[in-house]
Amino acid sequence: MATSEDRPPAMSAMIRLAEKRDVPHILRLIHQMAVFEHLTHLFSATEPSLSATLFPSNPSPPFLSFTVLILELSPSPSQPAPNPFFTPIVRELDLKSPISDPDSETFTSSGGVVSGFVLCFPNYSSFLAKPGLYIEDIFVREPYRRMGLGRMLLSAVAGQAVKIGFGRVEWCVLDWNVNAIKFYEEMGADVLQEWRICRLTGDKLQAYAEDHHQD
Amino acid sequence: MATSEDRPPAMSAMIRLAEKRDVPHILRLIHQMAVFEHLTHLFSATEPSLSATLFPSNPSPPFLSFTVLILELSPSPSQPAPNPFFTPIVRELDLKSPISDPDSETFTSSGGVVSGFVLCFPNYSSFLAKPGLYIEDIFVREPYRRMGLGRMLLSAVAGQAVKIGFGRVEWCVLDWNVNAIKFYEEMGADVLQEWRICRLTGDKLQAYAEDHHQD
Repeated sequence: MATSEDRPPAMSAMIRLAEKRDVPHILRLIHQMAVFEHLTHLFSATEPSLSATLFPSNPSPPFLSFTVLILELSPSPSQPAPNPFFTPIVRELDLKSPISDPDSETFTSSGGVVSGFVLCFPNYSSFLAKPGLYIEDIFVREPYRRMGLGRMLLSAVAGQAVKIGFGRVEWCVLDWNVNAIKFYEEMGADVLQEWRICRLTGDKLQAYAEDHHQD
Repeated sequence: MATSEDRPPAMSAMIRLAEKRDVPHILRLIHQMAVFEHLTHLFSATEPSLSATLFPSNPSPPFLSFTVLILELSPSPSQPAPNPFFTPIVRELDLKSPISDPDSETFTSSGGVVSGFVLCFPNYSSFLAKPGLYIEDIFVREPYRRMGLGRMLLSAVAGQAVKIGFGRVEWCVLDWNVNAIKFYEEMGADVLQEWRICRLTGDKLQAYAEDHHQD
């Protein structure tokens, strides 16, 4: 029978609304995601640009504009402060072995170690005449994968969408990422096979500046 | 040589911000779009639900939340009222023949005949740390197609994105709609072939209500 010394320490996972002080962590998480997706050539975010766009001086309430939720792990989670817009979600983790995280110092925050995040914002279905939530990013750092934390983040967004009366949650997945597709389908999502995203950006977008679009 | 009687009457197209009084037209346009896409089974919008979600009592400035632009045609466009957020765009149409529109009475508005619309809202690129504009709907009624009006609507959104410093314009297209894809590519857009949209809605979404997502 296992003695208490053999067991990994108790660990709690908490999802809470991000605050401006989290920007350095958010920047590092987004950069890790760009590395993971081999897309660092598209990466140009900085702490000031994230602060200005995610935490403007005149912010909308959470979930009515760009919103970040932070995932933190801690052996003893602090009692989350009450928040009128989002009740922090806490779950005890049932760890099989201790977590080895070489970057834990870099990602230390007041509430533990930042382990992942989700960035979402409202979208709109005109057929439903209802807003939804669109998940732009969902990311769990490598040492914290395969513990159900991605599911916990996605469920947090879905639960919030239901709570505020929104009609859908949507996000994107790469068509070759069969594990992710299987995971999303098991969570109840449909993968829309026929739709393609069109993107106008960079010089091609700049060509539509004021004078041009009057033509 | 053609006499003046042979020529179709002069016609101007104007794109302007929608107002609450446009809701009945917007509802009819969305319904026509659902018919066109064979998706009326997904259609549940009503005038009150559109009013409440597109024209809330405490609205954000245009392009910072759900925003509708209306396309109107008129032989003599009224001078558009100055608007601090969006300067109406007017273009003279070079018509080859008169337009025959059996629904023109239904779609009559104070500024002419409502011929199309675009619905967009901000999205966010974390790699750029910049908002963009996402086009949820772009629609031109049947009698007004093949006159460059779809291009005029898309250009209006792209020009606005540049004007307010946004980094991208994005939208979706059905993969079998080769004419639309060709049209978008000629306008400078990339069609992202690898990404698929995931959607959680209806009963599957409701399963993530409050109690569930605490698990």
